[in-house]
Amino acid sequence: MPNSTESAEERLIARYLRPLATHPGALGLVDDAAELTPPPGCDLELKTDGVIAGVHFFPNDPAEDIGRKALRMNLSDLAAKGAKPLGFLLSLAMPTGTDEAWVAAFASGLGEDAQHYGCPLLGGDTDHTPGPTTVSIAAFGTVPHGRMVRRSTAKVGDCIIVTGTIGDAALGVKMRGDASLPARWRLTPAMAAHLEQRYLLPQPRNALAEAVLQHAAAAMDISDGLVGDLAKLCRASAVAAEIDVARVPLSEAARAAVAAEPALLETAMTGGDDYEIVLTLGPEKVAAFRAAADAAGILVTEIGRVVKGEGARFLHNGKALAFTRPAYSHF
Amino acid sequence: MPNSTESAEERLIARYLRPLATHPGALGLVDDAAELTPPPGCDLELKTDGVIAGVHFFPNDPAEDIGRKALRMNLSDLAAKGAKPLGFLLSLAMPTGTDEAWVAAFASGLGEDAQHYGCPLLGGDTDHTPGPTTVSIAAFGTVPHGRMVRRSTAKVGDCIIVTGTIGDAALGVKMRGDASLPARWRLTPAMAAHLEQRYLLPQPRNALAEAVLQHAAAAMDISDGLVGDLAKLCRASAVAAEIDVARVPLSEAARAAVAAEPALLETAMTGGDDYEIVLTLGPEKVAAFRAAADAAGILVTEIGRVVKGEGARFLHNGKALAFTRPAYSHF
Repeated sequence: MPNSTESAEERLIARYLRPLATHPGALGLVDDAAELTPPPGCDLELKTDGVIAGVHFFPNDPAEDIGRKALRMNLSDLAAKGAKPLGFLLSLAMPTGTDEAWVAAFASGLGEDAQHYGCPLLGGDTDHTPGPTTVSIAAFGTVPHGRMVRRSTAKVGDCIIVTGTIGDAALGVKMRGDASLPARWRLTPAMAAHLEQRYLLPQPRNALAEAVLQHAAAAMDISDGLVGDLAKLCRASAVAAEIDVARVPLSEAARAAVAAEPALLETAMTGGDDYEIVLTLGPEKVAAFRAAADAAGILVTEIGRVVKGEGARFLHNGKALAFTRPAYSHF
Repeated sequence: MPNSTESAEERLIARYLRPLATHPGALGLVDDAAELTPPPGCDLELKTDGVIAGVHFFPNDPAEDIGRKALRMNLSDLAAKGAKPLGFLLSLAMPTGTDEAWVAAFASGLGEDAQHYGCPLLGGDTDHTPGPTTVSIAAFGTVPHGRMVRRSTAKVGDCIIVTGTIGDAALGVKMRGDASLPARWRLTPAMAAHLEQRYLLPQPRNALAEAVLQHAAAAMDISDGLVGDLAKLCRASAVAAEIDVARVPLSEAARAAVAAEPALLETAMTGGDDYEIVLTLGPEKVAAFRAAADAAGILVTEIGRVVKGEGARFLHNGKALAFTRPAYSHF
């Protein structure tokens, strides 16, 4: 009876999580630790981020999407640093009484993403909690030695570029809390679905990581809102930024919402959960970066310039906008 | 006003956690990811484990000890694999309304341990949660390439050794739930304090990691009870174990409790949270390992042998003990 002492935890791990542990260093999740032989000449990038039900997602969100979201939040940071995903550790606390179907769906979504992004499970920790579902992920990536793209290396004169569109997720989460908003914002069903989906499931820009590594002077992912995150980048680099608000890319749905309710422009600029990249680069590098983004099928938009001074100024119709709540914070 | 957009989260991190981020790759916690240049010729060992209030510790345990416990649980795994600590990532979810004094105390205990064990903070993620305090740590260590000590490499004929004493924490947590037990178990106040402390704060055996690396054939840390964890090691190695229960080291306090209530022998053998190491090694290596343990001031005890077959048999007065609940599980 070699399995007579196998616990419920071991059975769940073997059935649903072991298939995600395709990295040889995961040792099939049957040892105490995972083992990585770092590629020669590379640095490891390490990041941890996570989600809590009722804070970062809705408790009734599909289980398939919860693990995906947690993994993608970390992948987004790796992309912004120019790193190639290597693997991740999972820490999963499930409410007491969580059924096996939930675990199966959670692992299925997470497993699809692990495969798609080339980021296998290396190890983990599962528990039951008297509190809400809590997923913490530590993700690892590689960059050539000394080449991690930092926040602190923006230079005066750099162009400022963002990927994708800004503010969708912040509008999507507002909509989740008030069913009357799609009508008030005059959204088509497709527009409403777009905003909702952008909150539910980030689209990290890992396909652009190599181009960020090659061309960016400084970069970070936008998780706490463009306004707040750009301010952090400026502080770290001891520079200022001037942003032309009219050039900040909004989706069709976000444009419709802002047209119906102009105050939503602040929501879009300051709200969290974009998971796009903001980067700075020398003007001579913009064309090459844009070509790489076109090849990857990712929208990139030049929105302003790095200048001398402190802080990020958002210029709209010739005036600097003043935001009432500049940075998104879960605190 | 360079700090005008700094959030409450950033202020807490800067004040209490940045002092723990002494590793240069932590980048002062002001970038999106940490950066590690792995030592040449070394593998990285990666482990994640964590604690939840009401599951792994009592909500009224001192804040100083909660972060320590989470870090030490991971350090214990690194020690059992023969790895030297390198650093860790912290994921901290605090109940809404947690005051700054709690954060200060939490960080103070964690910081002392990070320094003591040579395991600095590399990065982290802090949030508020509607649930209980939840701390997840991902810890990293190094071993010479290909040398990680596994569970799966025990050989028939090996001696089986454990560090420290077994069962103290399981008795300590029972005591926390029933104030009448110290008297019923005829414990002196010092004995009661010993058991309580062993539950509150693990003593990981990192001082023995180098000796484990040099001498052990197989090893793991005992976190889910000696009986259950030894069964896992036997399964992974496709061997059996014969343990002489009379030789399993119990502290004076545990011996007193078992003398008063013989059924507690099962609690001691199967209860979780020992954070000792069980290892196997060729009989010719026992003397050298023992000498290294003596030099480190750590008790080590030979408790049995690896034999052919399946499962771990615990022999007591000539009979194999049958345990009603062989492995500790948080499920």
